[in-house]
Amino acid sequence: MTDLSSIQPRSPIELYLKDLHERHLNFREGQVADYIPELAGADPDWFGISIVTRDGHVYEVGDTRQPFTIQSVSKAITYGLALEDRGESLMLSRISVEPSGDAFNAISLKADSGAPFNPMINAGAIATCGQVLARDGLSRIERILAYLSACAGRRLDIDEKVYRSESDTGHRNRAIGWMLRNFGIIDEEPTDILETYFRQCAIRVTCRDLAMIGATLANSGRNPLTHEQAIDPEFVDNILSVMSSCGMYDYSGEWLYRVGLPAKSGVGGGVLAVLPGQLGIGIFSPPLDTQGNSARGIRVCADLSRDLALHLFAPGAAPVNALRLSYDGGQVASRRHRAKKLHDLLRGKGHRIRVVELQGELNFPAFEPVIRFVLKQAPYCRHVVLNLRHVANIDKVALKLILDLRRRLAEAGVDMVLCNAGLFADDMIEQGIGREALFVDDDAALEHCENALLASLTGTVEPGTTRVPLAESTLLAGIDPADIEWLDRRMPEHRARAGEHVIRAGEAGDSLSVLIEGSVGVYLPSPTGGKPKRLEVFDAGRSFGEISLLDGSERSADVIALEPICYRVLDLALFEQLGSERPALKLKLLEQLCRQLSGNLRKANIEIAAFRE
Amino acid sequence: MTDLSSIQPRSPIELYLKDLHERHLNFREGQVADYIPELAGADPDWFGISIVTRDGHVYEVGDTRQPFTIQSVSKAITYGLALEDRGESLMLSRISVEPSGDAFNAISLKADSGAPFNPMINAGAIATCGQVLARDGLSRIERILAYLSACAGRRLDIDEKVYRSESDTGHRNRAIGWMLRNFGIIDEEPTDILETYFRQCAIRVTCRDLAMIGATLANSGRNPLTHEQAIDPEFVDNILSVMSSCGMYDYSGEWLYRVGLPAKSGVGGGVLAVLPGQLGIGIFSPPLDTQGNSARGIRVCADLSRDLALHLFAPGAAPVNALRLSYDGGQVASRRHRAKKLHDLLRGKGHRIRVVELQGELNFPAFEPVIRFVLKQAPYCRHVVLNLRHVANIDKVALKLILDLRRRLAEAGVDMVLCNAGLFADDMIEQGIGREALFVDDDAALEHCENALLASLTGTVEPGTTRVPLAESTLLAGIDPADIEWLDRRMPEHRARAGEHVIRAGEAGDSLSVLIEGSVGVYLPSPTGGKPKRLEVFDAGRSFGEISLLDGSERSADVIALEPICYRVLDLALFEQLGSERPALKLKLLEQLCRQLSGNLRKANIEIAAFRE
Repeated sequence: MTDLSSIQPRSPIELYLKDLHERHLNFREGQVADYIPELAGADPDWFGISIVTRDGHVYEVGDTRQPFTIQSVSKAITYGLALEDRGESLMLSRISVEPSGDAFNAISLKADSGAPFNPMINAGAIATCGQVLARDGLSRIERILAYLSACAGRRLDIDEKVYRSESDTGHRNRAIGWMLRNFGIIDEEPTDILETYFRQCAIRVTCRDLAMIGATLANSGRNPLTHEQAIDPEFVDNILSVMSSCGMYDYSGEWLYRVGLPAKSGVGGGVLAVLPGQLGIGIFSPPLDTQGNSARGIRVCADLSRDLALHLFAPGAAPVNALRLSYDGGQVASRRHRAKKLHDLLRGKGHRIRVVELQGELNFPAFEPVIRFVLKQAPYCRHVVLNLRHVANIDKVALKLILDLRRRLAEAGVDMVLCNAGLFADDMIEQGIGREALFVDDDAALEHCENALLASLTGTVEPGTTRVPLAESTLLAGIDPADIEWLDRRMPEHRARAGEHVIRAGEAGDSLSVLIEGSVGVYLPSPTGGKPKRLEVFDAGRSFGEISLLDGSERSADVIALEPICYRVLDLALFEQLGSERPALKLKLLEQLCRQLSGNLRKANIEIAAFRE
Repeated sequence: MTDLSSIQPRSPIELYLKDLHERHLNFREGQVADYIPELAGADPDWFGISIVTRDGHVYEVGDTRQPFTIQSVSKAITYGLALEDRGESLMLSRISVEPSGDAFNAISLKADSGAPFNPMINAGAIATCGQVLARDGLSRIERILAYLSACAGRRLDIDEKVYRSESDTGHRNRAIGWMLRNFGIIDEEPTDILETYFRQCAIRVTCRDLAMIGATLANSGRNPLTHEQAIDPEFVDNILSVMSSCGMYDYSGEWLYRVGLPAKSGVGGGVLAVLPGQLGIGIFSPPLDTQGNSARGIRVCADLSRDLALHLFAPGAAPVNALRLSYDGGQVASRRHRAKKLHDLLRGKGHRIRVVELQGELNFPAFEPVIRFVLKQAPYCRHVVLNLRHVANIDKVALKLILDLRRRLAEAGVDMVLCNAGLFADDMIEQGIGREALFVDDDAALEHCENALLASLTGTVEPGTTRVPLAESTLLAGIDPADIEWLDRRMPEHRARAGEHVIRAGEAGDSLSVLIEGSVGVYLPSPTGGKPKRLEVFDAGRSFGEISLLDGSERSADVIALEPICYRVLDLALFEQLGSERPALKLKLLEQLCRQLSGNLRKANIEIAAFRE
């Protein structure tokens, strides 16, 4: 039996797509477009299906690498470029976004303004081309080609033969161009714009490219593999909206009804569909139905949507609620080991600290239940910690709501802090949250809240900084004064400066230390030489290093003084001397250690239960 | 200082809605509908905003309890009832779902079939009314009223005066009715159907009702407060689709573009919008714009959508990835304390068990990354546990994928089990997953995997059932034979039958036990008298009850024999006798206990780190 299984299991999703492909292989309805000979030559049996997830994983089956011309699928993407060049309000004033009810090549212009009904019909697409600016030393078509290439994540090219043919036969489109010029929808004579349009339609793509462009739209305009921001995220919803209402010619209403995905098809046989936020789909099959959509493409998408429940409005399709877990400071404490009195105070009042772990993408629907939860807890607590460790993204709305919530809580005397803000910290500071409210991790945030709670309960500003005599240390609680005196004479006193190492990982563990003044941090050295991770803090009155002393193991972590400290040391030699000279004291110490360890274990088990909840 | 804060903080969402309401209070464009005197009497200043979340929380500001007639908003809901009565294909054959481009009251019928363009124009809505069946002893209008009432979660009624006026003046609609009869779109003379339609439009609702109906649509057709399944979930996506493409008259394309929410308006001044899966919105403001939509309603919805980023296609609006947490059996072990040899074996090979915690709603986009993650782990493990504890819902697709994944893993020699399946267990068993693959919680699943792994590593079927002599128990490892003999003569042997209590919670803790044969379970009695929760299992060779013996606390849990057991007892008297007669042995035992507790604490800290990750 080896440690590696020899067989890699097969993905049920790949098997499903293979089956879907086979199921539709023999469907032979529709006619390959034949208005130019270059399209008429397409093999009606070419058939590819590709799905690309938001994080760039590619599923593909069939002829997914066969190049073909993008045709009308380009209209949706060029619309994005025109929006970037001209802005939403100018674009809406020139090209409407209402479904027309007319054929794709009709000269459908609004009676009053001459505005094409929408950017997905030829009139609207030519008008859209005309809004793209020639700039940065690039012509319109060079910019369109670069834009589409960025979406696809590879350099695309133009099928010059198809372009020639389109241009040679595109007289109806020329008529549309001049009508647009007549109404002032385009600012110049249409000649160059039309050649740009013909070239744009002749850009060569594959089925995989279409799915990748779809995934780029699903991923807020960022290509999931190259990570290039191909489309300004501000305009992604505009593109998806016109695809939803007008993307599939006169079948758009029924497509939304049956398939329920923003999509665009082209007479080359391509269909691009998007499940916003999730994935892109590319289908390639040249035979077209009477509405000009890939006949097999429509059927495959309908099956995909039904089989995988991808319809935009599919019941239960939207997971929300950013609340991952919540516990209070009585269940989970910081790793700071405080003097007994403070420790006991916190055990009694720890429930006044409330930790809320969030998850996923924070937007209004996901964060709204969190607000309700926190407001419900507010009357019972003084401190709230929002742990953002598992938050993937925070939109502007949620960011504003976090700040608003903090303000409202402050009015009611509740202090809210955040931890693990990571990439979002800068945005938060920019929005006016003070740096003092942001903590590197949940332990640091918890400790801050505990300190503040203890300060308010004890009336001192910095609880835990006083000197604790050996007799009052947790380890020696309840030990006879004579025994303590015996130890006091034999345990040497050491001092260390702030930042000095008291213990180094890897050393032999031959002593335990009782901290008399100040506090120490226990740090796990990073194996990669990075910043060490702080595991625990011990305050005056607490002891550390017992476990290595007891089981003889080497030190697993560094112990570093956090301020000038004073500590007393009980080493192995003294521990053995105890066994022969004062066995009763050694017994008591061991019983004390057992109790201390039992207590820590109980506490750890309560924490585990809180995390397993 | 009391334990309760006296001030309840204010919700930032309520404050936002109050501000939004104020911002639009002075917007006075539009005309109140005046084609019948009952509508003309509406106060143009009435203005309400209401949002109801998927779980039934109501936010409201302004005139949200002012009754008004539902008018065309009813068209969307009645369409659902007709679908339930007639099915999708018959409905599609009689009423198309394409945007018309014509006015709402045009006699827009398709040239070939006479089918109305869509159910949101009058022709389509009257045709829809005609598909609703009179049944269960109820007339058409009684069924429609009951259906809408179930959506709103309260009994609605009809404004008889408005109905009378609508009927007295509805001649154009009568013409439409007869055209529909002419084309055979309705099966009977239109007279009764038209009166039903007029009455349906005169149903009285409030702004809050509209938001609640929206939340019912957002919640897969189930009213979030009454929990009644008001609309068959199969047809919720159909309703939302026609609202998206045709809900806002000739403004539908631009509405989807700007606001991006399925919506329906009525001439009574109501607007109902839905963020699928999340929430319902109701706006009430009687003055209408030239397209017949509430002028203020449109502006408020545009602001709401922008301010709260509710657009269907808003970037980052879709949180996914059901993967909550993953760890291996080397990081987190079951609560079964095994004999040392097996314990050590598991420490070395525990990574061959992989636990994957899932969360949220499992559908294709959320579960797909989990499949990839598990397949990537598969070559390194023999056992996979899917923990469903935090899963809110599993759709049919994800259910099938779970089963497929299990089958594919089995082919590669990897065993996948599930735990915390809860409500989904029955569905899983129905789909063919064996009961033996479902475990009540993660601990039971982990223990099963550990048992199977140990069986394959040791070649025995039931590892851990053999007798372990006192000298080989974990507690006495390394103790001198003479000491063990001394203990052996003094520790009485006890036996218990399967199911018998060895320790009861609340008893004084005056002994520790070493298990020689069989195993025991530690159970926490339920405070409500329910099923006790199993905390830990101890196998032969392990001891239990030490902590109470050491710190004198009472027993916190029951210990029950899981099979016939044999155990040896070290009680308080013997422990004290040890101190006086064999202090060196007592020291060794305490050191041993300290080491055991230290080991458990280390293990607990590794678990905590895995859960905090």
